[in-house]
Amino acid sequence: MRTTIKDIAEYTGFSVTTISLVLNGKGTKIPEKTKQIIFKAVEDLDYRPNQIAVGLVKKRTNTIGLIISDIRNVFFSNLAKGIEDECRRNGWNLVLCNTNDMHERDMAYIRVLADKGVDGILYAMSIDSDHEKAMESLTLMDSIKIPYIMIDRTFRQKCCHYVVTDHEVGGYLATKHLTDLGHRRIACVTGPLHLDDSKFRLDGYRRALEEASIPYDPALIYEGDYTVEGGREGINKLLSETFTAVFAFNDMSAYGVYNVLKANGYNIPDDISLVGYDNIFFSELLDTPLTTIHQPIYEVGIEATKRLIEMNEKKPIDKLERVIEPYLVVRKSTSAVKLEKTEANESVK
Amino acid sequence: MRTTIKDIAEYTGFSVTTISLVLNGKGTKIPEKTKQIIFKAVEDLDYRPNQIAVGLVKKRTNTIGLIISDIRNVFFSNLAKGIEDECRRNGWNLVLCNTNDMHERDMAYIRVLADKGVDGILYAMSIDSDHEKAMESLTLMDSIKIPYIMIDRTFRQKCCHYVVTDHEVGGYLATKHLTDLGHRRIACVTGPLHLDDSKFRLDGYRRALEEASIPYDPALIYEGDYTVEGGREGINKLLSETFTAVFAFNDMSAYGVYNVLKANGYNIPDDISLVGYDNIFFSELLDTPLTTIHQPIYEVGIEATKRLIEMNEKKPIDKLERVIEPYLVVRKSTSAVKLEKTEANESVK
Repeated sequence: MRTTIKDIAEYTGFSVTTISLVLNGKGTKIPEKTKQIIFKAVEDLDYRPNQIAVGLVKKRTNTIGLIISDIRNVFFSNLAKGIEDECRRNGWNLVLCNTNDMHERDMAYIRVLADKGVDGILYAMSIDSDHEKAMESLTLMDSIKIPYIMIDRTFRQKCCHYVVTDHEVGGYLATKHLTDLGHRRIACVTGPLHLDDSKFRLDGYRRALEEASIPYDPALIYEGDYTVEGGREGINKLLSETFTAVFAFNDMSAYGVYNVLKANGYNIPDDISLVGYDNIFFSELLDTPLTTIHQPIYEVGIEATKRLIEMNEKKPIDKLERVIEPYLVVRKSTSAVKLEKTEANESVK
Repeated sequence: MRTTIKDIAEYTGFSVTTISLVLNGKGTKIPEKTKQIIFKAVEDLDYRPNQIAVGLVKKRTNTIGLIISDIRNVFFSNLAKGIEDECRRNGWNLVLCNTNDMHERDMAYIRVLADKGVDGILYAMSIDSDHEKAMESLTLMDSIKIPYIMIDRTFRQKCCHYVVTDHEVGGYLATKHLTDLGHRRIACVTGPLHLDDSKFRLDGYRRALEEASIPYDPALIYEGDYTVEGGREGINKLLSETFTAVFAFNDMSAYGVYNVLKANGYNIPDDISLVGYDNIFFSELLDTPLTTIHQPIYEVGIEATKRLIEMNEKKPIDKLERVIEPYLVVRKSTSAVKLEKTEANESVK
């Protein structure tokens, strides 16, 4: 059986009230010697206050709840690692809920975390959250009165705290790298375009095209779903078009593109250049290491955790809108366009 | 503010006692009409019982706590996915704690989960758990009186429920595949040898060697740590020895081996065959797709979750010792040994 405050009373001979005052830091009038005896008894008996009961009174458990959408995507596990590391540094704990990209699980886990009495929530919305679903989950989030910060994905239509990376700049940097290398026909395998992160990357792509006076061609855009399989499907569809480079909106779908291109006898980058997005560690391990956009997602985790802990310890803040800049990592999967390439690609068609 | 039972009383005009009886399913004598009004009020006001308080009384929240050691290892995220899927099918929830392979975090999270009142714990011990630390965490686990099942890693010195895969058979299958291909000098990059999973794989390796009448040579064994970096270090050390094949005890360290071998001009499998362990998705994506041992870890997650839910719903069971068999997945990183290979390897030395 768990040690109770009564056991400590029996063990030390002091009253439950005395012990309770000391353990709650309210025993200012109680002699130091008495306190020492009580603290020693706490150790001897391995007494831990019942946090469920403490939670009811203090409303504080120093625990952050994290809701992420796909734990199998290394991108999210990096995010979780950053949060866990920052929690540990501050003596906080993290409990994580994985929604498998299903809005109904977002809703379920918001309730679970509220009911478990966490002190703050970091929320990466699930991928199937269209406008209506996003409104629904954020309305629920507001109703539970627990401080929360949106991470990675935000939702422009509703005011809330967020820490994200600048997806527009990321999309721009990826595309500009390719136009700088002389590419003019750049295919895209996007993420779901109802998501801000994906929409913004496409905005960045268009900005870079405009700067290079390249017309936007919708035939080169395939709407994927951020998975390896989606990347495979996308490139298989796109191969009927003419292009010399592909921009995949995350590394996972870039792997699908990479595989299909190699299986079809294309050399990366000699025939087709490929840029990913995320910079997850696998991208470095490929035989043709992937040029990609580094998202400082570990840093997003750290920053969001810091601010959430602050919100708990100080006054709530007005509005947190933190945007962290991504940057380009050039590896071996991109190279300058050669004129013959377009013809090579044409001849395969 | 959260809706309370008092708000429902004010809204409906019924007493708190009446409402409480109805909501707890004890209002058998209360008219159906009254119940309907109360249920409607619950919906109108979005009332949810305070689960912290409910937890104190009922001791049930239908939540499983999962402690894993390294969320960035895709192996563990597959495990978590299996558990989450099975939880969802049963209307249960999962909260996950990541220890970053630190025993002190194992201890912290066992306490957190106990204090949050989860109904069961699935526990994959952290990698730095030597004999003493394993005893410590399992003793703590026993003391909190919450049903738990060890997953993936078990600890022979202490009796507890577990669902694991058969690591000895896995090690045997990997090695036998290589000896069947004619390899006689097979280097190993193991995991930490104080862990049962790693020890058992090495046992399996030795059994396969014995069957093929190949003497065991300790010079071919490098004790790694299941990371890409550990794989790199291991193969760099081992390259001073003569061998035609490498068995890496997990896919992550196999990637390190793969990278260094290719960087040193070796062809896989023509010069050196390589077998991994885990079958995580990335192994298929490599330019030379990796032959590996498939660990049915998703299934381990499902099985452990099922049994843990059963333990909650029925009587506790005596002893759960479930071992799931792994199997070999042959891809392109292994081939029959050629006599010249040993010489090629020699000449590089």
